Amino acid sequence: MPTLTEFNLADAIAVLTRTPATLDAFLRGLPDVWVRSNEGRTKNGEDSWSPFDVVGHLIVGERTDWMPRARIILENGEARPFDPFDRFAQLKESQNKSLEQLLDDFARLRKENLAALLALNLQPEDWTRRGRHPELGVVTLPQLLATWAVHDLTHVHQLARVMAHQYREAVGPWSVYLGVLKCKGHSA
Amino acid sequence: MPTLTEFNLADAIAVLTRTPATLDAFLRGLPDVWVRSNEGRTKNGEDSWSPFDVVGHLIVGERTDWMPRARIILENGEARPFDPFDRFAQLKESQNKSLEQLLDDFARLRKENLAALLALNLQPEDWTRRGRHPELGVVTLPQLLATWAVHDLTHVHQLARVMAHQYREAVGPWSVYLGVLKCKGHSA
Repeated sequence: MPTLTEFNLADAIAVLTRTPATLDAFLRGLPDVWVRSNEGRTKNGEDSWSPFDVVGHLIVGERTDWMPRARIILENGEARPFDPFDRFAQLKESQNKSLEQLLDDFARLRKENLAALLALNLQPEDWTRRGRHPELGVVTLPQLLATWAVHDLTHVHQLARVMAHQYREAVGPWSVYLGVLKCKGHSA
Repeated sequence: MPTLTEFNLADAIAVLTRTPATLDAFLRGLPDVWVRSNEGRTKNGEDSWSPFDVVGHLIVGERTDWMPRARIILENGEARPFDPFDRFAQLKESQNKSLEQLLDDFARLRKENLAALLALNLQPEDWTRRGRHPELGVVTLPQLLATWAVHDLTHVHQLARVMAHQYREAVGPWSVYLGVLKCKGHSA
């Protein structure tokens, strides 16, 4: 069994490249009951996210988070903290769009960002570069890029959970076997 | 916001139809570190499942679980309990196959099973039909079909979690924000 202890850019890109097509196959054309339903209110009284909201959030990440932060690391190092990420920007930005538009936007932005990442032509010495997260403190460039990939995975995980939630009653006694119905949603 | 309280066959089929292409986009061609790595040993000392194992498990479900059980309900009702499902059959059956072969097998079997489901030409009166699960007792046909869809979702949820697990160290301090790394795997 292979183990992954060191960050490998090609492995991260393998995941990042596949996410737009994965979401497209998963979500495009689904009835609204799957796409627009959420898991109810959060403890803070906010609406939890629907699959539609999640795709909007991924778009905001492509625009404002991952590659902009990589550039801050390369240009400013620890001297300049990253701009904080707006976890609710998509609620405004996606408002008048269809899911299909969001999926198209996400695919285009991801493609542009991966092309920009490759164009940086990162070298082994870049793997020790550091930046400063406004809350987490010092982070490295490989940690940022690994997080970009795991952030995709955390939202695939969430999409499956949000969709399953809509059938939590419909499955009847089988609910005891279905782990996804026991997942409490762990994102901070 | 739409809510789903009653089982709707078209909604379930919308999910079931999309799962093969979703897994294909997610997994085909990924490096082995993503496809063949698992989450370590379970509490019982067994190997947990890799994405490869999960696809094999979905194939076994197509062969032995969902449609065979629907037919038992329609032909025998509660009189004949379902055959127990072998959760470990894939460990033998998938052994000498590639992930690509498994994805192809799953797509073909799912297509055949959905065609067979439509060919049953289920009518409103069929929604009250009941069967007997060997452990859970009396279940209904709609519960079986809803569970088929949520079973897909629980394994998409698992795949994202198993893959994220491989980068649990690589993300560094960001792990606190990544819910998928806090999911403990809830399947019974």
